[in-house]
Formats: sequence, C-alpha cells, structure tokens
Amino acid sequence: MIQKTSLDLKEIYQPIEAWLPKVEERIYDILSTPNELSAEVIEHFFRAKGKFLRPALTLFGVSFSSERMEAAVVTAAALEIFHSATLIHDDIVDSACLRRSLPTINVKWDPQVAVLVGDYLHDRAISAIFSTRNDRVIAAFLETAGIVCDGEILELKEKNNFSLTEETYFTIIERKTAALLGTCIESGAILGHLSSEEVIALRRYGLYFGMAFQIVDDCLDFMGKENEFGKTLGADLKAGVLTLPLIRLIALLDEPQKAEIFSQVKNGLGHSQLSDLLRLLEEYDALSYAYDRAREYADRAQLELTIFPDSPSRVSLEMLLHYVIERHR
Amino acid sequence: MIQKTSLDLKEIYQPIEAWLPKVEERIYDILSTPNELSAEVIEHFFRAKGKFLRPALTLFGVSFSSERMEAAVVTAAALEIFHSATLIHDDIVDSACLRRSLPTINVKWDPQVAVLVGDYLHDRAISAIFSTRNDRVIAAFLETAGIVCDGEILELKEKNNFSLTEETYFTIIERKTAALLGTCIESGAILGHLSSEEVIALRRYGLYFGMAFQIVDDCLDFMGKENEFGKTLGADLKAGVLTLPLIRLIALLDEPQKAEIFSQVKNGLGHSQLSDLLRLLEEYDALSYAYDRAREYADRAQLELTIFPDSPSRVSLEMLLHYVIERHR
Repeated sequence: MIQKTSLDLKEIYQPIEAWLPKVEERIYDILSTPNELSAEVIEHFFRAKGKFLRPALTLFGVSFSSERMEAAVVTAAALEIFHSATLIHDDIVDSACLRRSLPTINVKWDPQVAVLVGDYLHDRAISAIFSTRNDRVIAAFLETAGIVCDGEILELKEKNNFSLTEETYFTIIERKTAALLGTCIESGAILGHLSSEEVIALRRYGLYFGMAFQIVDDCLDFMGKENEFGKTLGADLKAGVLTLPLIRLIALLDEPQKAEIFSQVKNGLGHSQLSDLLRLLEEYDALSYAYDRAREYADRAQLELTIFPDSPSRVSLEMLLHYVIERHR
Repeated sequence: MIQKTSLDLKEIYQPIEAWLPKVEERIYDILSTPNELSAEVIEHFFRAKGKFLRPALTLFGVSFSSERMEAAVVTAAALEIFHSATLIHDDIVDSACLRRSLPTINVKWDPQVAVLVGDYLHDRAISAIFSTRNDRVIAAFLETAGIVCDGEILELKEKNNFSLTEETYFTIIERKTAALLGTCIESGAILGHLSSEEVIALRRYGLYFGMAFQIVDDCLDFMGKENEFGKTLGADLKAGVLTLPLIRLIALLDEPQKAEIFSQVKNGLGHSQLSDLLRLLEEYDALSYAYDRAREYADRAQLELTIFPDSPSRVSLEMLLHYVIERHR
C-alpha cells in the first residue's frame, strides 16, 4: 500500500512550516536560565537540529482544526524539550559519544552535567506543559512520561538477552518511542478541539507511526556505510541492545550458529565478525522481515487517517509514513 | 535563643505520627510497577529509612488546620519521592557508594540504572502532585523542582573553586536544599486552607530551617569519627565541594597557607592532611562560625512561628529547630 517516492521533511512539513520557528523560539524561552553552565550546555545541545518530529506531529494534530495553532506552540516546544531530556539521559546510559554529529554532553562535559541538565530540561518541559492549563493534555503527558521511562528501564534490563522475543521487543519500542509520538499528535488534536473519535484516530496514527519509525531506526543500525553521517555500524548490538533484525535472525538459526554469534558479540564485534553478521542478515532476509513489519505499522497508521477529509495536513501525514520507511538516516 | 535539649525525631513527630505510615504506604502505591528491575531497585532504596523530614513538614503544615490531614498524605508521599529521585541522581554525580548505610544504586546496579530509576521516581512524583488537582501546590512544586536542579548544577559548576564566596554558597544551599523544604511545609499549609499570611510564614520557616539543616550537614562532614555510621570524614571536600566551614577558614588564612591547602586537596587528602585541616578549622573557629550562621537561621525560622497560637504542632516545629542544630548525623 505504501509506495516509494522521494521525499524530504521540508516538503512534508509545509502545512505547519510557518509555526516551526515559533516552536524553536519558545524552546529557548522555556529553557532560558541565568545559570551559565546550563545555558552553555543547552546552547550546544540544540545547535544540532534533529528532525523535530514531535513538534511537527503536535502541530499537525492541531492543524486539522482551523485557527488554534498558537495554543499548540508551547506544547510542541515542551514535548521536544522532554524528548531532548530523554536523549541526554540515554546518551549516558549508552555511553554514546556523538549525537547529531556533535559530541554528547556526557563526553563534552561529563555524565554528571548530563544527569543534571537532563533533569533541568525534564522539569522545564513539565512546567511548560502545565502552563497550558489543559488537564487532558497534562494527564496524557504525565502518563506517557512514566511509560517512556519504563520502556527504557525494560530495554536496559533486557540488554544482552539473546532470547529476547519479538513480543518484548515490540513492548519496549512501543513504550520508549511510540507512546510519546502518539501523545504528541494527540495533544495537538486535543488543543484543536477535535472530536473524541478524531483524537483517538490521531493518537493511534502517532503510535503506529512511532513503531514503524523505531523499527526502521533499528534496521538502519545495520545498513549503510560505517562513518557515513558519523555512523557506527551495529552500535546497538555492540551495546548489547537486541533489535528486530537480529531477533528474527536468531529465531531462524540452528543452535551452533546461534552459539557462534553469542560468543562473537560477547567478545566484542570486530570488523570481520560484523561483515559476517550483515551477510547472515541478508541471507536470512532478516532486514526485509523487519521492514515488512514497519510497513505493516505504516499501513495501520494510514488507515487511521481515512476518517479525515482530504486536506494538506492529511496528505503530509501520509507522506510522513513514506518518509519514515524510505529514509536513510 | 535556641537552647540545648536532647531530642529525637520520634518525639518531635508525635503530633503527625499517626499519618507517617500512611505516607509510607502511599509511596509504595505510587511507585508500584510490573517492571521487575524497577521494583527491585525501589525496594532496595526505600529499605533504609531516611529522616522523612519532607513528609513530616508537609504534614505539620496541614496540621495547623483541623481535619485536612488526609489530603496531605499524597503530597507528602510525592515530595519524599521527588527528594529520593534527586538523591539517586546526586549519588551518580558524586560517585557515592553508600546512602543510609546501604550501597547506592549506582554501585549495587550501575549508573545507567540509577539515571533511569531516578527519572521514573521523578515522573511518578510529579504525577502524584498533579493528582491533588490543587493548582497552587502544583505550581509551587514545579517551580521548586527547577530551582533544586539549578542549585545542583551551580554546585557542580563551583566544584574545586577555592575562591567560592559565602554568598554563592548560601545561594547554592538555598536552591538545592532549603527551597524544597519550604515548599513541603507551604504545600501542607495550602492544603490545610491556612491564611496567606500563615502560608508565607510557614514557607519561610521551611526555608530557614532548610538553610540551618544544610549548614549543619556541611559541618558534620568535618566532625565525628571516620567510619561512624559508615561515614567518610571530609567527603564533600574530597569531591571538590567547598562548604561554609572551609570557605570561612580560607577567608582567614594568608596566601601561603591557602596555597598549601589547595595543593593538598588537589593531590588527594590523605589521613594526616585531613587531621591538619581539622586542626586548622578548630584553631580558626571555622566550625563555630558556621554553627553560628545555622543558629541565626534557626532563630529566624522560630520567629516565623510566633504568629501561630500555642499548639502541639508549633511546639514540634520549635523542637525540630533544636534537633537540627544538635544532631550528630
């Protein structure tokens, strides 16, 4: 159902484009502080632009109603700040060195600074959400904050578990990634005063979109060239995080083959072991399998949009599903 | 004005004693999770009881009104959980090994687990505060959460700054410690529907109490015996954190003496250097000086109580000021 096209985010974001600079401004407003160290760290972190998916989804949610965009700006900013706080703490958890091609806070400063600045962003995000005075948005956000954290703890617990099931993998990515994307577009829909049916449909769109997004992210970890975009191939696996392509592969291998892979990962994946692994993923169609799952989620997301009449926002949300499958980074 | 007596917390907490087990129960309710790793870590952390000062202050705040205690239980629980989250992250920042005589989470598990479980407690605390539906309590809490974090970042920034002024020290402890204690008792007072004047007086009591508490805490770091209560003498200084006794001492020393101390701290304080330092603190009355500042704050706190008629709660809050100065741990 999802067809291949060549897309970029700028084109997809066109219906909400005018509001994105306002969100960026608001992010700096919310995070402004006389504390010099915090200010310096914040400036560094936001210098490298991410995809801004969470603010975009929030704005798309509200864009189905006519003229309530302004109300969503602070929520969009808060959700991006919250997401940034989780990235900063994730980089400590993963001992990551690079984020968006810049040194991580734990490396450029130290993990201590990253813990506290992450906490600061977290607190500021919640205060900003609270400033909307919208109880449904606040409640949805607070519930999701707990779910995201729970998903991350579950992922940490399952590190190096070579018997990880697909079911647990899907639970982890739903919690750590998809739930927040669902809440972003849901919050926009609530602020736009859409009907309950529409709010639920958009929330589901966000959730399924998030599943597809994370599965593709996990596939990309095994694709492309080492050092492209400052990339390390197989970084998740090297950190002990098992994702769908490998879970699929392991399910298809016989015991001696499995034992071979476990021991290689345990002893540190070198260049040649990684090449062997990539060949096996290819041979057993493990990446195609994962992409098929991602496409299924994208199809389910697209189905949720059918209750909306044709509009530039609906078209963009459909295009976003193509983008998420086709992207190379 | 504050006189010496021999006090224990159990006696002081008598007017609110019946409510403390309810707070403890509520803490476990709020933090209950099917996530096994989280549950295990939470069980470990709360096994060792702290002083429960924050719930106690919250309950004392509400205890001035007649029958609204129940409303404060969830807030008291949330404030203790929030405080616990900051302790868990502080222990990462300070690479601490022991907390209340038990191994810290960063040691028993690892810093990664501590980052995420701290985040989880943080999120659950905020959700619980939000469940009170009391906008003044929520707003006071959210503002304070940002202040606490800011104070911790400032402390981190000023680590190893041997020119730290008393003024900056007081700013740090007001933000990292006193602000939250002020918010605890203020929240109770708001929930007890006290008058604005009474709410402000109790907030100030909590703030001044918190200043006295932290100054004494910082003095205790240089007092008592190594290994008593699993204690490391001079732990703050070894971690580069300068506190009031040392700031005072440095202000009184001549340049060569200062240079000597800087180089000792820089090269790692051994047993004999620490003994020399303790002798200097004694010789220059630096600890007495700090205790005098703590007593001044306790006196200011006591003054705030004069607007309240005599009651068991007022007596307890006065006794708590004695306790905070006299305690040995």
